Amino acid sequence: MADARVLVAGASGFTGALAAHLIHRHPRLNLIAATARSDVGARLDRLYPRYRVPMELTELDPDDPPDADATLIAYPHGAAAPLVERLLEAEQYVVDVSADFRLHELSAYEATYGEHGAPELMNEPVYGLTELHRDEIRGARLIANPGCYPTAALLALAPLCREGLISDVVISAASGVSGAGRGAGDRLHFVAVDENFSAYGVDGHRHLPEITQELDALAEDVGTPPPPDAGARERDSNGSRASERERRRRRITFVPHLLPLDQGLMASCFVTPVRDIEAREVAELYAASYDDERFVEMAPEPPGVRDVRETNVCRIHTATDQGTGRLMVFAAIDNLWKGAAGQAVQNLNLMLGLDETEGLL
Amino acid sequence: MADARVLVAGASGFTGALAAHLIHRHPRLNLIAATARSDVGARLDRLYPRYRVPMELTELDPDDPPDADATLIAYPHGAAAPLVERLLEAEQYVVDVSADFRLHELSAYEATYGEHGAPELMNEPVYGLTELHRDEIRGARLIANPGCYPTAALLALAPLCREGLISDVVISAASGVSGAGRGAGDRLHFVAVDENFSAYGVDGHRHLPEITQELDALAEDVGTPPPPDAGARERDSNGSRASERERRRRRITFVPHLLPLDQGLMASCFVTPVRDIEAREVAELYAASYDDERFVEMAPEPPGVRDVRETNVCRIHTATDQGTGRLMVFAAIDNLWKGAAGQAVQNLNLMLGLDETEGLL
Amino acid sequence: MADARVLVAGASGFTGALAAHLIHRHPRLNLIAATARSDVGARLDRLYPRYRVPMELTELDPDDPPDADATLIAYPHGAAAPLVERLLEAEQYVVDVSADFRLHELSAYEATYGEHGAPELMNEPVYGLTELHRDEIRGARLIANPGCYPTAALLALAPLCREGLISDVVISAASGVSGAGRGAGDRLHFVAVDENFSAYGVDGHRHLPEITQELDALAEDVGTPPPPDAGARERDSNGSRASERERRRRRITFVPHLLPLDQGLMASCFVTPVRDIEAREVAELYAASYDDERFVEMAPEPPGVRDVRETNVCRIHTATDQGTGRLMVFAAIDNLWKGAAGQAVQNLNLMLGLDETEGLL
Amino acid sequence: MADARVLVAGASGFTGALAAHLIHRHPRLNLIAATARSDVGARLDRLYPRYRVPMELTELDPDDPPDADATLIAYPHGAAAPLVERLLEAEQYVVDVSADFRLHELSAYEATYGEHGAPELMNEPVYGLTELHRDEIRGARLIANPGCYPTAALLALAPLCREGLISDVVISAASGVSGAGRGAGDRLHFVAVDENFSAYGVDGHRHLPEITQELDALAEDVGTPPPPDAGARERDSNGSRASERERRRRRITFVPHLLPLDQGLMASCFVTPVRDIEAREVAELYAASYDDERFVEMAPEPPGVRDVRETNVCRIHTATDQGTGRLMVFAAIDNLWKGAAGQAVQNLNLMLGLDETEGLL
Repeated sequence: MADARVLVAGASGFTGALAAHLIHRHPRLNLIAATARSDVGARLDRLYPRYRVPMELTELDPDDPPDADATLIAYPHGAAAPLVERLLEAEQYVVDVSADFRLHELSAYEATYGEHGAPELMNEPVYGLTELHRDEIRGARLIANPGCYPTAALLALAPLCREGLISDVVISAASGVSGAGRGAGDRLHFVAVDENFSAYGVDGHRHLPEITQELDALAEDVGTPPPPDAGARERDSNGSRASERERRRRRITFVPHLLPLDQGLMASCFVTPVRDIEAREVAELYAASYDDERFVEMAPEPPGVRDVRETNVCRIHTATDQGTGRLMVFAAIDNLWKGAAGQAVQNLNLMLGLDETEGLL
Repeated sequence: MADARVLVAGASGFTGALAAHLIHRHPRLNLIAATARSDVGARLDRLYPRYRVPMELTELDPDDPPDADATLIAYPHGAAAPLVERLLEAEQYVVDVSADFRLHELSAYEATYGEHGAPELMNEPVYGLTELHRDEIRGARLIANPGCYPTAALLALAPLCREGLISDVVISAASGVSGAGRGAGDRLHFVAVDENFSAYGVDGHRHLPEITQELDALAEDVGTPPPPDAGARERDSNGSRASERERRRRRITFVPHLLPLDQGLMASCFVTPVRDIEAREVAELYAASYDDERFVEMAPEPPGVRDVRETNVCRIHTATDQGTGRLMVFAAIDNLWKGAAGQAVQNLNLMLGLDETEGLL
Repeated sequence: MADARVLVAGASGFTGALAAHLIHRHPRLNLIAATARSDVGARLDRLYPRYRVPMELTELDPDDPPDADATLIAYPHGAAAPLVERLLEAEQYVVDVSADFRLHELSAYEATYGEHGAPELMNEPVYGLTELHRDEIRGARLIANPGCYPTAALLALAPLCREGLISDVVISAASGVSGAGRGAGDRLHFVAVDENFSAYGVDGHRHLPEITQELDALAEDVGTPPPPDAGARERDSNGSRASERERRRRRITFVPHLLPLDQGLMASCFVTPVRDIEAREVAELYAASYDDERFVEMAPEPPGVRDVRETNVCRIHTATDQGTGRLMVFAAIDNLWKGAAGQAVQNLNLMLGLDETEGLL
Repeated sequence: MADARVLVAGASGFTGALAAHLIHRHPRLNLIAATARSDVGARLDRLYPRYRVPMELTELDPDDPPDADATLIAYPHGAAAPLVERLLEAEQYVVDVSADFRLHELSAYEATYGEHGAPELMNEPVYGLTELHRDEIRGARLIANPGCYPTAALLALAPLCREGLISDVVISAASGVSGAGRGAGDRLHFVAVDENFSAYGVDGHRHLPEITQELDALAEDVGTPPPPDAGARERDSNGSRASERERRRRRITFVPHLLPLDQGLMASCFVTPVRDIEAREVAELYAASYDDERFVEMAPEPPGVRDVRETNVCRIHTATDQGTGRLMVFAAIDNLWKGAAGQAVQNLNLMLGLDETEGLL
């Protein structure tokens, strides 16, 4: 088979540039163009010398997109949807790294991101967390590539959630600065981040609805009943009037922090289980989920983000808090790789019938 | 009044060196000597040029300690207790920055740290979290200076705990490397920490018993009944046989992470309250606790550790997680200042009848 | 004497904000207002929590500046000159931290920075490298506060230059990111700087004319003849036609690098001396220059920028390269303190008749 | 041809571990064992999770080394020589990453490192700076792999040195912490390095004799006469009595600095040329040297160490200092890759008849 011809749209940003690099060096893919909405005319290997993609950024005419087999879109949310629409008409395979197609319900999208650019397509996409949806991805034309925090959090929690074991979870996460994108602003100036660490998005981060949606789906897959008691607060506040879905949603607290480093993301998950669970049972659940996975590894100690830097690996450790019986799950990824461009290529491989590890090892 | 004559014992480590610096530049204290168990003979201003203490490290003869008014001990746990004993006999004021006198119950100490060096003194000390125990500190001869994580966590939680509002709390904390001390080892090599972030102490960190003890004490002060239901897990595991104290203790999960920075500590606290609490009520509780405090400030946004670097300030922000009703409290300190040497000097000021901010602004 | 009433103009940038902090906490100065050209209306203690200046940024009307005894201007070059003019008319003491009055010759200014805003004032200012011009500063109304690189380089080289010992010098310098200012842009995004190190300004950095001017002046003060042979290149290229000044200017190469840290600047100076010089003679020269200085210290080892962080100290080490006889001088400062706001306050102290260390220790 | 069977000796250190990783993932090499002098019995993928080498560190019996085709030795200097001797007897190909065989003259070795472990072998090795000695490396049995600083400095200077254009050079270099090795000690503690930058080795760094030897050799290759005047100092100090070699050696000043980052090394070279050289001539010299090189790239701007991180590339930029006519050359490498393990594999590829880029792209 001839190499698939791939376009990267939005290659001037961190995720798009890495995607262009991964595809450029991919043994079975052929990077035909890298387009951008800024820096048009600049050479990618001057903007990002380390990626060594000897190609000039060009402009994309959405009414006449390049004739590719597949396009990887690394646009901000809102900007991707119209292009997705056009590319699907052109019968391309599309991996959308933006948030535009991650949420299945329009109301959830609108509440989180505002107006949607192509609501009629919202039933099309497969949520591209590869390890959880591999079979659907294989047959898909449009992948909604997950957010970075959801990727780590869902890989951390899926083995427990699938068994209906999660009553309540606090996800205290932290990401390196590349996760916030190239758009500068004072907040990402070196001096603002260096030797600093702080929480952000405490009013409700955009990745929470995505995490909630997928945890709900995982629980529903196995018909998990809602937890017998979702906690003191809900009982007191007359939870009986809330629908089951609402009750389940309330159980997730997610707060991200900004780390003074470039690439790396940790999801530290504190799970109140619905019943006592032995460490051995936990280990077996994770082994069953991940022993055959090429990009998930169980670690004997809490992982460091350094352990996965510049790789597509998610490294996970589980432990039990003796005093409370809480389960603790720590999942580390590189936010630009498994959290964005790496997983996008992993999905592209699957869509195109290639081995999912091609170009990623 | 003549300046008080102060000795720093253990001045070759990070905390002791900062303590020597703070006392050396203090307008009302006179640093008479800086002793150490390593680097004896070295000049402090060569080991730590930035502290500019023109003094040679000397050895301390525990049987003939220098004739000081007060001694600040920055030893590892276990090593401090015998010296404390001797110094109290010599009628000195003592601030012990080690863990030796932080826990009131011998069994808790032994379970956490091993054999105690002076168990007969365990009823003497006042726990030196200044803002919580100011009056007792004023009259004390021996202060057990709090650990860095407990300082941030307790300042974050005290206003809620005093009112009996905490049913359950996850403390996901993170500290800069200076908190782990000067003792090297591979784990603190620059290359191991740089661009890294990971949890540690997940089997039970030594600061948990200290946090638990003090939260229990705060709750007991106001006769807080145990929470009506301390969570699903405890109900299922036959919590009824557990004493009230044991039940309360189970409600706290504490996990620290190591940050790739020098000085700075964040306690991100996720509180399940015993009842719904309005944001305004939370704000009033914290205002009542801290409006008059010189070293605690309430922030309109989540604090960064950079905001408190090289200061004795604890900067706190509260927020409510809309989906779950959880209260979130973020408290940032400089682990070497408010988390160790700074608070030690704050306490010393109080013991000696000085303004507690002297030498710390 | 009543406290002097001081205005900081340009307090939204890194240097101006630190200046506001230093003046706010100064025992003898009274910060009457902090003005800015951006962020007007914002509170300084929200923009820069760590400086704890409880004041709102206001706008400055250049036609009606606040009635202060002195103003410290932290504007970009070009913007300061008109304000300086107005403030001198109002009989204020002025410390201009911009580059507008550092160069004595209009042609040099224009070649480096473009049109000058108040050329008629160019003979007024005293170049505010305190240790080199203390007496003139005491009587001055207008101080041109030195650039950060010139401050370190000139303190490093003055003792040699005054004796006419420098034939040729390479200044390989490096600065933390705060030296580049708050204006963001991709180049100062955390991701661009983190784990990076590179030279910049290799086409000629703006600080070179300033260094050259001051080294020339130091050499001229003692009637230093030009070096007998300023190097092979100049001889070959018919140096005889060049004026003496031009020949001397050719001897200085200055290249800065960007360090992945916040505050700190190192000037590594490699001096080819006009004759062999013994280490002892070097030591004596530096001791004679700096033994009585409160803010310059000679170090037994090469200094680290960490040794001077958040201080007004310049820390210097000299060594001889055995193989070549070159003298090597390493000078470390905090670019925001001694390299900008700290030295500005040092100068302000002198202008106002205060001890120059007031508020800086 | 079957894959070559390769041993890595000294795989517990930074360089050896990376070498094991590069060989483990190499398409034509087979890592048969990883031995170490510390951490024997530990798994490499636990010591260095990011390298993912699923192998246990074993002990090497020097009297009975494993039966390999080639061995890569990553020992400290002094320890490698005896093992090299034994492996050559066993007819293995050897790449010695230690300093033991870099210097051709025993006296130079002894003056720099002390007693030599196998002086009778000192004429055997080829100095493995691949781009300068490719043909000799192809036929060699023993490669002395260059030091990290010499690699960058020599690639920076070779095009000029070969033409006899260098009269004098100052090499102001800087390296990330991994270059100093895993051996901890206070100096490499995170807290000592973070937010710091300082010169070291100012009394004479061990890499200077290596740089001098190779620059001399490059100049001699083309019969370069010594520079007509090696500078004021030498003329004054009666240079006429010095041999030509000594005079040439005096022209090099090399000082390294420690950077607060993990991997990355910059050599900033300031060359006084023997005659005026146009920028175009410089560009042509570098193009002639490097246009066909796979691992050297000429950059349009000063390179950042980030541009070459985790690659075997040396990225170079040249510029002319207008005021002095000095040539400035900036060369960036990853000290662990091109500066150590990467270049070792590049050499191994050549020795074994493989394409030199195999396993390195």
